[in-house]
Amino acid sequence: MKKIFLLGVAFIWVTGSYAQQALFNSGNITSPVIHDNNIVTFKLYAPEAGKVEIQGDFLPSIKIKTSFGEMDGPGKAELTKGENDIWEYTTPTPLSSELYSYSFILDGQKINDPNNVYLVRDVASVTNIFIIGEGIADNYKVQDVPHGNVAKIWYSSPTLGFEQRRMTIYTPPGYDDNNNEYPVLYLLHGSGGDENAWMELGRASQILDNLIAQGKTKPMIVVMPNGNAPQQAAPGEAPNSMIKPTMTQPNTLDASFEKAFPDIMKYVESHYRTINNKQNRAIAGLSMGGFHTIYISALYPDKFDYAGLFSTALIQPSEGKNANAYDNFKQKLDEQFSNPPQLYWIGIGSTDFLYEDHTKYLKLLDSKGYKYEYMETDGGHIWRNWRIYLTEFSQKLFK
Amino acid sequence: MKKIFLLGVAFIWVTGSYAQQALFNSGNITSPVIHDNNIVTFKLYAPEAGKVEIQGDFLPSIKIKTSFGEMDGPGKAELTKGENDIWEYTTPTPLSSELYSYSFILDGQKINDPNNVYLVRDVASVTNIFIIGEGIADNYKVQDVPHGNVAKIWYSSPTLGFEQRRMTIYTPPGYDDNNNEYPVLYLLHGSGGDENAWMELGRASQILDNLIAQGKTKPMIVVMPNGNAPQQAAPGEAPNSMIKPTMTQPNTLDASFEKAFPDIMKYVESHYRTINNKQNRAIAGLSMGGFHTIYISALYPDKFDYAGLFSTALIQPSEGKNANAYDNFKQKLDEQFSNPPQLYWIGIGSTDFLYEDHTKYLKLLDSKGYKYEYMETDGGHIWRNWRIYLTEFSQKLFK
Repeated sequence: MKKIFLLGVAFIWVTGSYAQQALFNSGNITSPVIHDNNIVTFKLYAPEAGKVEIQGDFLPSIKIKTSFGEMDGPGKAELTKGENDIWEYTTPTPLSSELYSYSFILDGQKINDPNNVYLVRDVASVTNIFIIGEGIADNYKVQDVPHGNVAKIWYSSPTLGFEQRRMTIYTPPGYDDNNNEYPVLYLLHGSGGDENAWMELGRASQILDNLIAQGKTKPMIVVMPNGNAPQQAAPGEAPNSMIKPTMTQPNTLDASFEKAFPDIMKYVESHYRTINNKQNRAIAGLSMGGFHTIYISALYPDKFDYAGLFSTALIQPSEGKNANAYDNFKQKLDEQFSNPPQLYWIGIGSTDFLYEDHTKYLKLLDSKGYKYEYMETDGGHIWRNWRIYLTEFSQKLFK
Repeated sequence: MKKIFLLGVAFIWVTGSYAQQALFNSGNITSPVIHDNNIVTFKLYAPEAGKVEIQGDFLPSIKIKTSFGEMDGPGKAELTKGENDIWEYTTPTPLSSELYSYSFILDGQKINDPNNVYLVRDVASVTNIFIIGEGIADNYKVQDVPHGNVAKIWYSSPTLGFEQRRMTIYTPPGYDDNNNEYPVLYLLHGSGGDENAWMELGRASQILDNLIAQGKTKPMIVVMPNGNAPQQAAPGEAPNSMIKPTMTQPNTLDASFEKAFPDIMKYVESHYRTINNKQNRAIAGLSMGGFHTIYISALYPDKFDYAGLFSTALIQPSEGKNANAYDNFKQKLDEQFSNPPQLYWIGIGSTDFLYEDHTKYLKLLDSKGYKYEYMETDGGHIWRNWRIYLTEFSQKLFK
């Protein structure tokens, strides 16, 4: 046994000696520590630091001035230097159930917690995450329930001129061991996102696994394509794309994605055991993906019986060679609601900068007498809300 | 158009305000910058720092004292503070083609480059990566070639007592659009790794895509299971596993993984279009995975015509209820070589701490007259070598 233990140590030193840094130089500490009462302690070994802060969305939010007025941003707190050059911060009260993000700020410099390997990327920013259970976020955790498989697949989109574009596909537990046909949810990301966003930031596979296990959500295939028309795949996953990601993707609001959407459906329906009718297709998206959802569900009114608009970017479409697809939108909406979808679902946060646009859109729907379901949550244009909306929306599908 | 641009800005401020940090507080800089001549510049916005260093495996290695004697570790260099509080380091000469790892050291504290979102995790350590092309690492890049799909799937392992264990499966380009049957390479990770390691650190799908496109490697299915017998999945991907990963996994050298290996093969051969004979099965692994490869290929001598031993942990097996599978190893080796594999391939780095053990193992094989192919590379027990070995080994399979 001794020899094997020694081998373990040797590996730590040898594999680039980075592991050595993490395990020894950092004082071999654990951070965060989630105590039994859901109080959380964060630790950082920083012998030379003059000041260490933590910035996270579990702290009381602070106001940030923007060109849109004041907005909520993650709060800050200071860590205290203790023994062995380890700085600590403990939350004064238990945290409620949620998936939280945080970073340390070391003498003014934002850094990741070197003792927490669970990181998510949002556009060009990488932050640490942790999950507090015993509430809503139990559905964001990997639980001891049957799991669906997740594949990154490449499909052909002749409409966009790409032989290969990437998408993420979740198949429900049991899919590979039965011959059932399944309904499909097309789930779209926002501006700055990609085909990985709903899995990494949105915890889509965990949410689906858990709700299906609880019998609350019907087993379904979830298709998460890349909604940035000029992209083949997420940053780093397409040729020459291993560069710093940016928020603004050209041409994603010019109807090219909407026009090319049948390429995605064609692939899915020819490669998976799908039920190919309106009653068994849903589409939903956040922000730009909500924009795409409005137009795709209206452009193909006989295709989707369920539409989910999550914090939708209700803005003037861009121009471009395909933009005529946006013409006469109200007429298209009339057509869509002449044989209305089973569910037209709208979610928005009460402090979202798009809140007023939503009020106007609801008025439009009301004036026409079009039925919809509406959910208003706290907070703004954040993933916390989109995970809630997926949790709510997915339970209403295909029933 | 103006309205859409404004929306982009709003998003940056609103989504947790983290993106704002990365894009504005950091001076909106790009790092690393790979110049046309493969000289590389690294930049960090750090107004309050007294000293900024870079530690990376592209710098002349430094000696680290360990209980095994001196070993090579990544070198260090200092950044210079320039205008606008931006620190810089430029390599004095062009870098040769490779996938490199690095971190910054800010006043003694290891941090990730906040302007580089491409990160890899090795056990409990996360570092930035970048790729220099025009050489061997062109095969590690995503190129404009047909891509295979990659799935994270759950299989049942009754032998290990898990209803669900996770593995990564690469299917070659075209697999989903033809009816061909394919050979299979089982590709195993090392101690501290998991079913994600070969994809993330090993660039397995890129290497396979590129070599298949060049006609150098035959299209094949690559199966990357989790070799830690007590684990269901990678850290964070199994229940209650979102904790700090450790190097030492109990019971992974006690033959339980080897004994349970038929569960993996059974799933693969019943769910994929595989060619189910010895001539069309290969197995390879690094370090602990090389150890597993030796024993699995010897325990099931009629199953694998190709065995790849990459920097193999040639150590005394652990004890345990299954350890009798290791008994009479030389006799099992005799049996394996009585109908010898097409290829018994061994790769080792000249400064690997396992080098001397390899010399002994080669002597054993020589003394028996067993044929093998041997490749010796520079360097030690590092992913740089394992990517090279996969590149070499995969070209020799199923021909």
